[in-house]
Amino acid sequence: MRRCSRCNVNEAEVYLSYSRQYLCKECFNQFFEKRVKKTVEKYRMFKAGKYVAVAVSGGKDSASLLYSLKLVFPDMKFVAIHVHSGINRYSDESMSKARELAEMLDVEFHVYKLSEKDGFTIPDFIGTKYGKRICATCGLIRRWVLSYMARELGVDILATGHNLDDTVEVMLNLFLTGEFMQLKRLKPVLPPEHPSQVWKVKPLILTPELDNLMYATLNKLPVRKINCPYHKSARSTKMKEWIDIWERRNRNIKFQLYSVFSKKLIPILNSALPEEEYGTCKICGGPSMGDICSVCRRKQYILEVKQKL
Amino acid sequence: MRRCSRCNVNEAEVYLSYSRQYLCKECFNQFFEKRVKKTVEKYRMFKAGKYVAVAVSGGKDSASLLYSLKLVFPDMKFVAIHVHSGINRYSDESMSKARELAEMLDVEFHVYKLSEKDGFTIPDFIGTKYGKRICATCGLIRRWVLSYMARELGVDILATGHNLDDTVEVMLNLFLTGEFMQLKRLKPVLPPEHPSQVWKVKPLILTPELDNLMYATLNKLPVRKINCPYHKSARSTKMKEWIDIWERRNRNIKFQLYSVFSKKLIPILNSALPEEEYGTCKICGGPSMGDICSVCRRKQYILEVKQKL
Repeated sequence: MRRCSRCNVNEAEVYLSYSRQYLCKECFNQFFEKRVKKTVEKYRMFKAGKYVAVAVSGGKDSASLLYSLKLVFPDMKFVAIHVHSGINRYSDESMSKARELAEMLDVEFHVYKLSEKDGFTIPDFIGTKYGKRICATCGLIRRWVLSYMARELGVDILATGHNLDDTVEVMLNLFLTGEFMQLKRLKPVLPPEHPSQVWKVKPLILTPELDNLMYATLNKLPVRKINCPYHKSARSTKMKEWIDIWERRNRNIKFQLYSVFSKKLIPILNSALPEEEYGTCKICGGPSMGDICSVCRRKQYILEVKQKL
Repeated sequence: MRRCSRCNVNEAEVYLSYSRQYLCKECFNQFFEKRVKKTVEKYRMFKAGKYVAVAVSGGKDSASLLYSLKLVFPDMKFVAIHVHSGINRYSDESMSKARELAEMLDVEFHVYKLSEKDGFTIPDFIGTKYGKRICATCGLIRRWVLSYMARELGVDILATGHNLDDTVEVMLNLFLTGEFMQLKRLKPVLPPEHPSQVWKVKPLILTPELDNLMYATLNKLPVRKINCPYHKSARSTKMKEWIDIWERRNRNIKFQLYSVFSKKLIPILNSALPEEEYGTCKICGGPSMGDICSVCRRKQYILEVKQKL
């Protein structure tokens, strides 16, 4: 039996490659929750209020997020919000796991079903001009729905489960494609950019993806067992695989990348690039660069396509 | 036999993975030399004069550089300059190959031997406080010597054989370590930053390392067969190996990285970061941030160390 590197008493159950530590369940939980607490406090994530919507997807990241936030911040009020995208069995299992988690933690649970509210599902985009970038389209619509739900519920803050791997992957992709205006919006705390928005925070931004998986597993959180059927083709999956290869050569590379982007590059981009000014979408009232926002345009498009069928 | 993708007549001798082309020797030479010509013209590398010192190391890159420049720019005057660092057999073979190349091309050849001029060699640093970063120390001293030789010879321009792989590796390393002030100096053409300097140009900055190897081999250029004994431990070697792994997943990654750094990031850094102001080294008269430049400090140090032995 290998003993925990911290308490030196219990049997180790997890290994953290970036710090070369073997930890028992108790010490790992403590370590994980302390990092969440420090991240929230360091970036003053909850300064905008006490009422926080947590986006729960049915996956390990958001399960770990809601579970740890409830433990670490007992005085805050949390509500769980979920987007059902209509991806068959995958969406149904995701929703049932998200609901199970909320019930287990005694947190209010709200669902937005695309098929019921808007009359389409994400698979409807397959075969259309948005089909090749289905993950981008899905992400865009989900962000829009989360923002909409947060506003409708009147919360102060919207928390999402973006982890370190997600963040570094997006940073590197945006860097490589030269999308610096988008890159500078990748912050742990994003203030409202439009009157329709609430504060957005990412309490797990310093937590590696694997830690979330271990945390959710050790604490037996309800998490879906199936992957999204479109997952494999995602650009993000390929970039993540490749960053993992990098990590085997440099065990701190994810923290190093995050640090260079957030402490060095983004401050320079903020000072050198202009602020984006958003207008208001005539249909949904959300932020938009033109008359109609990119989500409402996609909604109109997909409903027209469906009518023609 | 596989035919050349260009002329469709001769047998192909090289394969360019980034453009998926099989080329014969003639077509590859033409392609290679055209890229050198276009690079020099695009960045107006020779606008400062007609007299160019080419740094030849005895390796494939600088051999390809001098050979192609002589062919493509018959009206320019070239001189070959070489630094002998005293790394035993490696430096001796490097010098003899560099001399052979210069004689073959009927170009004047000048050598600076560290042991004769300064009384030390690069291996003298092993075991000292600079021993762990021996490649960085060697590079620093070599750059200093090349600048010194260029000034002594009265040339207008100093050309070096830095290839695309070198450039992208350094860019990525400087980016990851947050050394943005150094990063913004990585340009195809660097104007003098101090009265003691000449223009520095990199005509092979858009040429992948493997292309230089193939060009030098096909044209039977004299090139050393042994590697530097310190080469394996270099940080740059590890980063290059890793970028090569990346290239197998994305065959254009080196060009893409170069493009994003040079067209997007460096212009932003130039506008956002202050210009560095150099003073003059009291010993060598070259650029320095303090009273004595980093090379003269290392020279003093290593001579003191040697005296104590």
